Amino acid sequence: MRLPDSEAAHLTHTLRLKTGATIQLFDGEGHEFNGAIVTTDRTGTVVETFEPVDPAPEPRVAITLAQAVLKGRKFDSVVRDAVMLGVSAVRPLITDHTDVPDAALHSDIACQRWRRIAIASAKQSGRAVVPVIESPTSFNRHLIGTRDGLRVILVEPSTGPPSDRLNLLVSRPRPRHAMLTVGPEGGWSENELNRARAEGWEMLTLGSRTLRSDATPIVSVSVLLHVWGEL
Amino acid sequence: MRLPDSEAAHLTHTLRLKTGATIQLFDGEGHEFNGAIVTTDRTGTVVETFEPVDPAPEPRVAITLAQAVLKGRKFDSVVRDAVMLGVSAVRPLITDHTDVPDAALHSDIACQRWRRIAIASAKQSGRAVVPVIESPTSFNRHLIGTRDGLRVILVEPSTGPPSDRLNLLVSRPRPRHAMLTVGPEGGWSENELNRARAEGWEMLTLGSRTLRSDATPIVSVSVLLHVWGEL
Repeated sequence: MRLPDSEAAHLTHTLRLKTGATIQLFDGEGHEFNGAIVTTDRTGTVVETFEPVDPAPEPRVAITLAQAVLKGRKFDSVVRDAVMLGVSAVRPLITDHTDVPDAALHSDIACQRWRRIAIASAKQSGRAVVPVIESPTSFNRHLIGTRDGLRVILVEPSTGPPSDRLNLLVSRPRPRHAMLTVGPEGGWSENELNRARAEGWEMLTLGSRTLRSDATPIVSVSVLLHVWGEL
Repeated sequence: MRLPDSEAAHLTHTLRLKTGATIQLFDGEGHEFNGAIVTTDRTGTVVETFEPVDPAPEPRVAITLAQAVLKGRKFDSVVRDAVMLGVSAVRPLITDHTDVPDAALHSDIACQRWRRIAIASAKQSGRAVVPVIESPTSFNRHLIGTRDGLRVILVEPSTGPPSDRLNLLVSRPRPRHAMLTVGPEGGWSENELNRARAEGWEMLTLGSRTLRSDATPIVSVSVLLHVWGEL
């Protein structure tokens, strides 16, 4: 099997592996194999695969993290950690208080970087499935486009009428799909909260403490996985 | 009341607050007040305090995070997030596989930085208690010096005999104190694991997925707080 150029370059230039070196290969869709480099030269790198490897098990709940795009490189670390924890997909959201230049959102550069991070994180954590990193979506489209499974908006304890905590989910059966929606540094606008309520989303809080915007998604995904016996 | 110089400089230089500006003050031991700047000049900044404020509630379990020192600035983000989540103390550990220069560990500079981060994080998260950042301790002293409460060493699922998961604690009464011990990038040595077992520590895993070394303590503290109904 001939490797894609980017992976071949990684093996032979970055890791400096030679013919005969043993490697692990995965196809990003749940299959992982032991293998070895057969030849490597200017025309490419050919590998052979041996027995399949048991990858880290995937959670029984497919969690999509719909996360408002964060400033600077904070979204990078959210993607990395969320993939390591086991989410099925990450949906970057554009919200009323998203404080990121339009140009950054509408170029493909950020999205391609997040996809590379997702691949690297999946490898590093022993997952053989690479989660989907969707293209940025508006909050509105996200709200009305999600119909199945558990639909949660994470809110600050101080917003609006008192909200239940995320751990209320302990008393319910485990869903097959969960859409966890987490806001940007500046939180949700009134308008967004009202629309989410009108669309029947559940508004839940993480607890009474304030976390950093990039720690919140990771802590919430951890709690959900734990609630569902998946951590 | 006259403010300490560092806080006065923060208010008047960094935040550029003037006489009359309203502020919140806390003493780091659980008390928080609304207040205002009375005078600010070269001799210092004087504030008056008004009514007390309800700070974020402290968890009913005093969790100490005993975390092996990590490379680069990763320990900084662990301190920041752990304080925001609500730990009572952070104990930097020196372990067999701690990959940090001795000079860095034995100078007070890192420790002072972690203490400043703890103060800033406590403020930012609405906690009126600043957790203790202890001086670096050897793993051995940590093992034999901890006698009370729940004593946990977080281990990789692949280490030694199969370990129970952290969520086994759901079925036990909530302890008053918990010592959560998390290793460095390179994990625990065989010797360390054997000694911990001999000293009667519980070896628990977080789950089957591999997380980054600086994400592990945050996810574990989140899960513990959630198990004890504190998140």
